[in-house]
Amino acid sequence: MATDRVSPQTNMNSNKRFGIHEVNDLSHEEFVKCFGNVVEHCALAASSVFSSRPFKNFEDIRNIFENFVRNLNQEGKIGVILLHPDLAGKMLNTGQLTAESRREQAIGGFDSLTQDEHEKMTKWNGLYKDKFKFPFIQCVRENKKEVILRNLEIRYENSIEVEVETNINEVIKIGALRLKDLIVDVKAGL
Amino acid sequence: MATDRVSPQTNMNSNKRFGIHEVNDLSHEEFVKCFGNVVEHCALAASSVFSSRPFKNFEDIRNIFENFVRNLNQEGKIGVILLHPDLAGKMLNTGQLTAESRREQAIGGFDSLTQDEHEKMTKWNGLYKDKFKFPFIQCVRENKKEVILRNLEIRYENSIEVEVETNINEVIKIGALRLKDLIVDVKAGL
Repeated sequence: MATDRVSPQTNMNSNKRFGIHEVNDLSHEEFVKCFGNVVEHCALAASSVFSSRPFKNFEDIRNIFENFVRNLNQEGKIGVILLHPDLAGKMLNTGQLTAESRREQAIGGFDSLTQDEHEKMTKWNGLYKDKFKFPFIQCVRENKKEVILRNLEIRYENSIEVEVETNINEVIKIGALRLKDLIVDVKAGL
Repeated sequence: MATDRVSPQTNMNSNKRFGIHEVNDLSHEEFVKCFGNVVEHCALAASSVFSSRPFKNFEDIRNIFENFVRNLNQEGKIGVILLHPDLAGKMLNTGQLTAESRREQAIGGFDSLTQDEHEKMTKWNGLYKDKFKFPFIQCVRENKKEVILRNLEIRYENSIEVEVETNINEVIKIGALRLKDLIVDVKAGL
């Protein structure tokens, strides 16, 4: 294995990514260290996915991560959601985010909101959490911040069942992009 | 909340334990910090259990942790098992164990095996892992080391299906004892 790839952060900061055969050669410990944050703070997701080796290709491992999350019961899915930080929340400026979340929020411009945007975000994050008792999640790399702010207001009107599923779909999108940072996707030429 | 209870390790080293109302008052972040290792390395278990608050009593929270583990599919259960260390393995002497595992292995006498016991343990741990591709787990606080060594040899003969379930039963026993280190069980007078 590539010994310089001991953490996702290291890997993200370089442009080197694993080939699928390199992934298949990782020990359980190495695998969990590298892929333990594909689903935010969920070492168990990576550990479970590890048991399905060998992986055929990028799409295969992506599907297995997705299946782990989708196969959880309702409480398990809420558990996954609760392990995610607020968008533009307090943790962004106190160094408490995971490297992946920090980077994603920066790409999405959430580390440089205008005062007006920040106040709006704080207000609606609060209202959303009061209603659902879990944070609002949206893949910031796929959406502009204006769209995300608008979505937060719209999604606030949904039922809890719809929001669990919507958040879980976003968790899966985020995980797929994190996997692309870690593994070469030969088929997609990426 | 009791501010000196920021980690299970702190709590174990003192004899102070949470009352159930104190547990119900913890934030998600505090809860995962304190209970994130009830199931070894499974923050997701604690995060999921948190969503079922308020807990009625010790038995209630114990049951909810058990249900989280039992409701995982086969790959999820193997994921949980893979996050456990070997008994008397290399990590015991390199400071890599969680505080809970280190303490439990010490109580069970696995940090002071005779050379003969150590060689036997290493041999059978290796055979077991070669066969099942996951570690042998047994609750060391409930069994003498001689019994555990014998069980390892006996359980080696089982099918993988039986060993997944047997290991998961042990994970649940270990988790219940870890919870007892953290929460006062009023009903049992403990």
